[in-house]
Amino acid sequence: MRYELYYWTGIQGRGEFVRLALEDAGADYDDVAREQGDDAIVRFLDGAHDGALPFAPPFLKAGRLVIAQTATILHHLGPPLGLVPDSESRRLYANQLQLTIGDLVAEVHDSHHPIAGGLYYEDQRVEAGRRAADLRETRLPKFLDYFEQVLERGGGRHALHEHSYVDLSLFQLMAGLDYAFPRAMQRMARELPLLHALKQRIAERPRIAAYLASPRRLAFNESGIFRHYPELDDPA
Amino acid sequence: MRYELYYWTGIQGRGEFVRLALEDAGADYDDVAREQGDDAIVRFLDGAHDGALPFAPPFLKAGRLVIAQTATILHHLGPPLGLVPDSESRRLYANQLQLTIGDLVAEVHDSHHPIAGGLYYEDQRVEAGRRAADLRETRLPKFLDYFEQVLERGGGRHALHEHSYVDLSLFQLMAGLDYAFPRAMQRMARELPLLHALKQRIAERPRIAAYLASPRRLAFNESGIFRHYPELDDPA
Repeated sequence: MRYELYYWTGIQGRGEFVRLALEDAGADYDDVAREQGDDAIVRFLDGAHDGALPFAPPFLKAGRLVIAQTATILHHLGPPLGLVPDSESRRLYANQLQLTIGDLVAEVHDSHHPIAGGLYYEDQRVEAGRRAADLRETRLPKFLDYFEQVLERGGGRHALHEHSYVDLSLFQLMAGLDYAFPRAMQRMARELPLLHALKQRIAERPRIAAYLASPRRLAFNESGIFRHYPELDDPA
Repeated sequence: MRYELYYWTGIQGRGEFVRLALEDAGADYDDVAREQGDDAIVRFLDGAHDGALPFAPPFLKAGRLVIAQTATILHHLGPPLGLVPDSESRRLYANQLQLTIGDLVAEVHDSHHPIAGGLYYEDQRVEAGRRAADLRETRLPKFLDYFEQVLERGGGRHALHEHSYVDLSLFQLMAGLDYAFPRAMQRMARELPLLHALKQRIAERPRIAAYLASPRRLAFNESGIFRHYPELDDPA
């Protein structure tokens, strides 16, 4: 199966969670918008394809199937890519964990855009300062302590006792947070040894290491979800 | 199978999407916290149960299985409750649509809590005014036009060409929005005939009608996700 991934060019964004799964599995895929431009995405959003209608990218074309929503795509890709345990209960747990990662990702986005995604950061800086402080002091510790416990329950090295797309997504989450909030993440590091060790191990997986060193891996930047605005991090 | 639903007492919240599915199917279930108090939830969040660890309610106990995240619960319940089409592609589409409903629900929540969920509304009223205006003018039309198109593609009466938990969730979404933003919803009503007709039809399904008339259906209130603050609605 040759997959077609559709995601906006220029940022990692939510598409990166899907890209990491495809890369880790050595799957055959086209990153369509990077080849054809963002218009290829817009055609689907405008309803040019029969069947499932995506609300937003990322979405994946797998044969005739069109699948949107990051967690739904990963739920579908898990078995054929060998990136989720076989049992139904573990597949459900993987889906739940991916959704909880997605909830935190949405909160990270809103920390620099608390008023409106359509406004510039500069138009909501004051509000972003308040929201980011709450994220750093309340929400990040709550979510990250939870994921640390999940790893503990999974035997220390994995969310699900074995390698899965959830581990890849936790890598991406930690990489993004380390980029966006280096001081806050440094402050919390001692409480999160399993997450930090997981991040390191995933980065060293041969296909992931090759991907991260390739031009396919875009750098984090201030158009994406994980943005480094020093004024939104812990005070120096 | 006797299900156990865990959700905070006192509000409909995200638990209501699960409750509507259980009620519509006439499933056998305990609404545990309403019988035993919210402490029954906290025990699970503190890790008292082996296996899957919930981050937050709602979660469902189905035999030994613990499943959290609204969309994951509904994905699991769909087949045994007869609330999702059989084909894998439709099940995936249902999951995608439920997640997109969930994304809008999160945005509705943040319209009255744009800065921090842990602060009172009164401590973020000014910011809520700006965010709610963007919700009403930009985000609601975008999401609701999308769902209207989904119904159109589904033949006009259903998201998925047949009754499913997605239709029940669209009912709940419309009911909540009509409660929270009556003037804005009135303004948009002419563009959304299929959504309004769906809301009406679902309310008339015998088991849903009985549920809505029962004390089990809590009223919308200003502790929940859908809150009616007139100053956050369209100007009179």
